[in-house]
Parts: sequence; structure tokens; C-alpha cells
Amino acid sequence: MRINASTPKGFRDFLPAEARKRQYLLNKIKEVFERYGFEPLETPALEFTDVLKGKYGEDEKLIYEFETKGGDRVALRYDQTVPLARVIAQYDFAKPFKRYQIQPVWRGENTQKGRYREFLQCDADIIGSSSSISDAEILALVLDIYESLGLDIQIKINDRTNFDGIDKKYISSIDKLEKIGEEGVVSEMVKKGLAKDEAEKILKDLKNKFLTKPLQDILADLKTMGKDVGKVNYSPTLARGLDYYTGMIFETVAESSSGSICSGGRWDEMIGNFTNESLPAVGFGLGFDRTLEVLEEKKLIPQDINKRSVLVTVFSSELSNRSLELVSILRKDGIPAEIYLGDNYKMNKQLKYADQKGIGYVAIIGPKEAEKDAATIKNLTTGDQTLVSLENVSSQII
Amino acid sequence: MRINASTPKGFRDFLPAEARKRQYLLNKIKEVFERYGFEPLETPALEFTDVLKGKYGEDEKLIYEFETKGGDRVALRYDQTVPLARVIAQYDFAKPFKRYQIQPVWRGENTQKGRYREFLQCDADIIGSSSSISDAEILALVLDIYESLGLDIQIKINDRTNFDGIDKKYISSIDKLEKIGEEGVVSEMVKKGLAKDEAEKILKDLKNKFLTKPLQDILADLKTMGKDVGKVNYSPTLARGLDYYTGMIFETVAESSSGSICSGGRWDEMIGNFTNESLPAVGFGLGFDRTLEVLEEKKLIPQDINKRSVLVTVFSSELSNRSLELVSILRKDGIPAEIYLGDNYKMNKQLKYADQKGIGYVAIIGPKEAEKDAATIKNLTTGDQTLVSLENVSSQII
Repeated sequence: MRINASTPKGFRDFLPAEARKRQYLLNKIKEVFERYGFEPLETPALEFTDVLKGKYGEDEKLIYEFETKGGDRVALRYDQTVPLARVIAQYDFAKPFKRYQIQPVWRGENTQKGRYREFLQCDADIIGSSSSISDAEILALVLDIYESLGLDIQIKINDRTNFDGIDKKYISSIDKLEKIGEEGVVSEMVKKGLAKDEAEKILKDLKNKFLTKPLQDILADLKTMGKDVGKVNYSPTLARGLDYYTGMIFETVAESSSGSICSGGRWDEMIGNFTNESLPAVGFGLGFDRTLEVLEEKKLIPQDINKRSVLVTVFSSELSNRSLELVSILRKDGIPAEIYLGDNYKMNKQLKYADQKGIGYVAIIGPKEAEKDAATIKNLTTGDQTLVSLENVSSQII
Repeated sequence: MRINASTPKGFRDFLPAEARKRQYLLNKIKEVFERYGFEPLETPALEFTDVLKGKYGEDEKLIYEFETKGGDRVALRYDQTVPLARVIAQYDFAKPFKRYQIQPVWRGENTQKGRYREFLQCDADIIGSSSSISDAEILALVLDIYESLGLDIQIKINDRTNFDGIDKKYISSIDKLEKIGEEGVVSEMVKKGLAKDEAEKILKDLKNKFLTKPLQDILADLKTMGKDVGKVNYSPTLARGLDYYTGMIFETVAESSSGSICSGGRWDEMIGNFTNESLPAVGFGLGFDRTLEVLEEKKLIPQDINKRSVLVTVFSSELSNRSLELVSILRKDGIPAEIYLGDNYKMNKQLKYADQKGIGYVAIIGPKEAEKDAATIKNLTTGDQTLVSLENVSSQII
């Protein structure tokens, strides 16, 4: 019975090299989340469909839902915000509650737009604090994550209240300012029913809006935290698509790159809708795939993730025990090591295997080495080769 | 619109304390996998239903499957073995291929048996090697994982070829030996059609089976690797349920505990069935939930995962900037730290928050401390309290 070796559209395998890069980014993000006192939360892949319904507007059609054999109507996790609201309603937490959540979500997107149907979301939110310090913490967290990744970024910031009195349908046009330019925005607003001069006035008024008091407080806190506020730029026409934001909103752009890689804001009303208990919230979602792409473009992912590992080759079946001893010594010393497991001991084949796996060092124990209780260690990056006694091999791996 | 705050049966939320324990175990396992030269692989949650069908016998009914709005028949990952076979068929790998995979799987199990419908699988397999060293590596890996967790275990080992010539239906009875005893097994075999003396003879013959040559080689290799072969016990009646095993099979039992927490073996035929290319394989699956339970029972999970973290309290709004400065210093020094974000500055409330989160240290900057550019640091475990200048606080956190 042959397998049709393919995956559904928009779904990806991550083979070792790719999986390692993702692991690298994941660990960096988690490390900063933990340093800021955020705690991990995990929710199930399947929720009752009722929990997700009526929460995502017209995007609801993208939810994967089905009926189980037991008759439950269930749906695959679509985002991590609604499950968070459910968790807040279901359990009792010490508030403010600072949680991060990094799990895949599933959306039946149009893959022709280059979108995936399964992708990782990385969210951090502070629930239960309306202090400006919590907004500042979110910005500081974003700055620190990208600093730890070595990526130069700018954060565009605005206050959603700058749009008070402007009809929602026009806001979605203004949101496209960067993409379609001022003329494009005005002509869209005109199409939606505004007179041209009215549309132009709205845009002009927005551009002249002064930093709101909340934004001033947030930036002052950020400065007190020792962060470079020069990386945070006020952008009074920044609208952000989601209409659940209530205060600060922001987007993050990488240097000489376009499109937001990380965005968020304050969303004080949404949890109250679900739980009857009003709970202010501020947070963000980091675009994992987009961030990884930018890091790759800029060559900011260490290429040597596997460079400290050793392939202990096997010279012959008679000498394989010496290789086994060495691989055990290396592992005991905490060095990733493997013994060649193929049944063909040709040295070329073994070296090719090491090369394909990106292994950094090769150890060879032939008769000459075995006699001296030693191994020849070859650094595959530099080509350097030395003879070392077995118990000293680990010290040669740097 | 209120949320019905519940999850489907058999599906779990992992709140921070639980998520942290899981993280601890996950990291330990991954670290050993990497040390043995295994590489990470990730496959999508959804596969085409055709890929999974016909692979799991009568358990196939437990697969979650549905049709997408686009008309694809898809199924949630049921295990990691079939996706591995698909990946091997789909891509070109350097062989032997050593991969580990740690992802959730979904099964519509009867939850009354205490089973979950979403659970993490931890698998490691070596594909493309028939060397006895690869079997030994798998055993060494299991020994090292549990050693790194501080858990005393025994591995029961057998060779599936010991059952050659015994009908499959009787093997499933013999597999229950430990549960139902010798008499129980014999009476089951009699019910299935054997004469009593025939059944007794089969069992007696099995018990007298000498260690097979492959097992001898594997144990010799394991010894050469410096492992304690005393932890590996030959058990000629061990059968293991899955009928795709072809050679070594094993189960792992924790000291003074029952039931296998980790099991596997050699399965040389299965991949060939899927790919037309015959590829020997050996590996295992670690029971993540079961291992975590045993670690908890034996108090082997560090309780102080959060003990190095600091809550910087806020004395008053006037002094909050000093607290902000301190929290930034601590984070810069790599210490997990957070500033209290509630709007009520009562010290009792802040201390209670620290306690609920299991935070190890509290920093207080009142007027007295502020004047001296210092903070009072309280170790919540010992109760010790000291006044330290702001730039020296990090050195007090141990």
C-alpha cells in the first residue's frame, strides 16, 4: 500500500535544517518573554465551535470545523485571543495575568496569496492592567526581542482614539495609506460616500493630531526603562485592521524591508464581552514566519547550529568498538556526537554523510590511532587535522 | 456574547505551572536527542486522509477526519510513524536518517479509561541502518534520558523472532502475561482454540528461549558504550502489541511503578510497504504524560523553576519610575523580572501576587531606599531581607 507522498495545500513539513532555524527563533522569543515575567499558556487544538463562532466577523468562514464521531461540533484553533478569553473566564488567575502562547493556528486561507493554512502564532498579553507601564512593557518587549535577534527595527505607534468620530468604513481605507498613497485613500473614501474635500480634511486633521496623553505617558515610561525611544515613531494615520483595539496600537517594520512583522495594541473591551468581568488588556502578536524570512534575508540566523557536533566514523567492523567508546565519551561530555550507522565503511561515504548533515567534526580511529588509544580529529570547517588521545578529544571540539 | 467556558472531553488546557513542568521535561528530552545526533522533524497537523487510511487496523475508527470547505478529505495526525514514512517517501535524505519528532496527536479515544484525545508524542527513530549498534543506541538513549531526569528505570527486552511460528492471535494473549498471570494466558489461549497442554508448552518453550544472537550483539554494543546493562533485562515472553516489529522489542518501567513509560523496537518492514524502497528502522516512543506523572509522584520535577525571578513592587506612583529603572537593570542582567502592574499599590496585595506566581524575590523601593539609590530585597523562600544599591541588586539573586 503506497503512500501518496504529499501534504494538503498551505501545510508544510519542516525538515531538520528548517526545524532547527525555527527552534532557534522560538528559543530567543521565549527567553525574552520569560525575562519579562510572562508565563506560558497552552490551549487545545480543538475548541467547541460555539466558542469560536461570532468572534471573527466575515473571516469566520476560514475556520476549520467539523463534527466528531461522538457528535461534538468542534473547530481548530483559529487564533490565541479567543482561547485566552475562554481561559480567563474558566479559571481563577492572579491578576494582572501576563501570559505568552506559541502554538499553531489553522485558517482556510487562499494560498495563492502566499499564505499558509497552518502557522505558528506568538502572542504575549497583559490582562488586568490599565497602567501605561504595561503598554510600555509591551513595546520594550518587542524592542528586546528584535535586539536579541540582531535585527534593526522601527515601531510605528498611534492611539486608536485619534480615529474617534471617524466612521469605521473610512478607517479601513486610511489603513491602506502606505500601500495606495494619499490620493488612493481619498478616492476610496469618496467612493464610500464622502465629498473629496471632506475626505482630504479628515486625512489632514489626522496628520496634525498631537501625541495623545496616554502615548506621552507610555513613551515616558519606555524612556525610564532605558529603551531607545528613537526607534518608536508616532504615526497618527496608522489604523491597524482589527477593530477591537481601544488605545495604543503599533506595528513593527524591519530596516529596509516592508510590511509589519509584529503588531499589537491595547484591547480593553473584548474580554469583558466574553466574561461579564471587564478586564483591560494590552499585547501583541509576532509574525513568526515573516520574522524568520527577514532574519534569513539578512543572514541573521547562525549557520553553525550543528557545527559543534561530531561524526565518529567506523574504520572497520573490528575497530567499531573503539568508535563506540569514543562516541560515548563525547556524549558524556555534553557534545552532540554520533557514530556512523551505515553498513558501508568507505571513508568517502562517511565524510559525505557528515557534510550532508552539516556536522562540524569527524573522528577517525584506524589501526594506527587504535594502537595509541587515540583518534584523528578533523575540523570540517578549517580542514585542520590532529591526533588526540581518546580522553582528550572533547577538549578539541570548540 | 458569553463564552461557554469549557473544552471538549479529553482535551486539556495547560496553565502556567503545568506548562512549565511540561517545558522542563521537553527540554530534557530534546537535549539528549540532540546529544545523540538526532535531528528535529515537524509534520503538519492535517494530512490527506488517504495517507492515514489502512495503516492502523481497527484503531482507524479513532482518527479525526473531515472534509474541508475546499473539498479535501483530511485527518488530524494520529501518530508520527506514518507521517515519517510519508516524509521518507517524499524527500531525499542522507541515510541513515536519525530523526526525533515531538508533536501532539489526536485520537477519539474512550476518555473513561483515563485517556486523552490530544497528547504529545515523543519519538526517535533511526532509518536505514540494520547495524546492532543502532539498536544499542536506542537503548542507550532511553537510559540517558531517564538518567538525566533522575528516574530509576528498568528496560525489558526481547526479540520478536522468539514468537516465530506462534499464531498472532496467541501472541496478543501472551502479551497480557504480567496483567493476567500464566493461568490467565493459558485459559485465554485455550478459549482461542489450543489444547491446554499445547498452550502450556508454548509458554514454557518461550520462557526457556535463550538470548538471540541479535540481542547478544546489541547488549555487547551497549556495554562497549559504557552503559549499565544491568538495567536491561531479558524477558522472553514480552510481546508488545504492535505487530509491525521485526526484531528487538522493549518496554521501560520506572522503579516501584507499573506500566511502560517508554517502548519501541526494530521495525524493518513497514517503510518498505509505503515507499517501495526497503528501509530498516529502529526507534521508540516515550510516553510524555505517563513519564511526567511518574516524575511528579517521585517529586523529581524541580519546584523552583520560578525561584530566580523578581517582582519589583511599586511603592507609590511618585516612586514608580525607580521601580521601572530597577526592573530594566535586572532584565538587562538576564534575570526574569517584572514590575507590579496592578493599580492598587498596597504592599500586601503585591506580596500576595508574588506568592501566587511562585516568584522568588521581591524588591521594594520606598522613599528611604530611593534616597539612597537602593532597594530592599526580600528572599521569599528564606525571608531574608537586605538593602542593596540598585546596580548591585542582580548579584543578590541566586
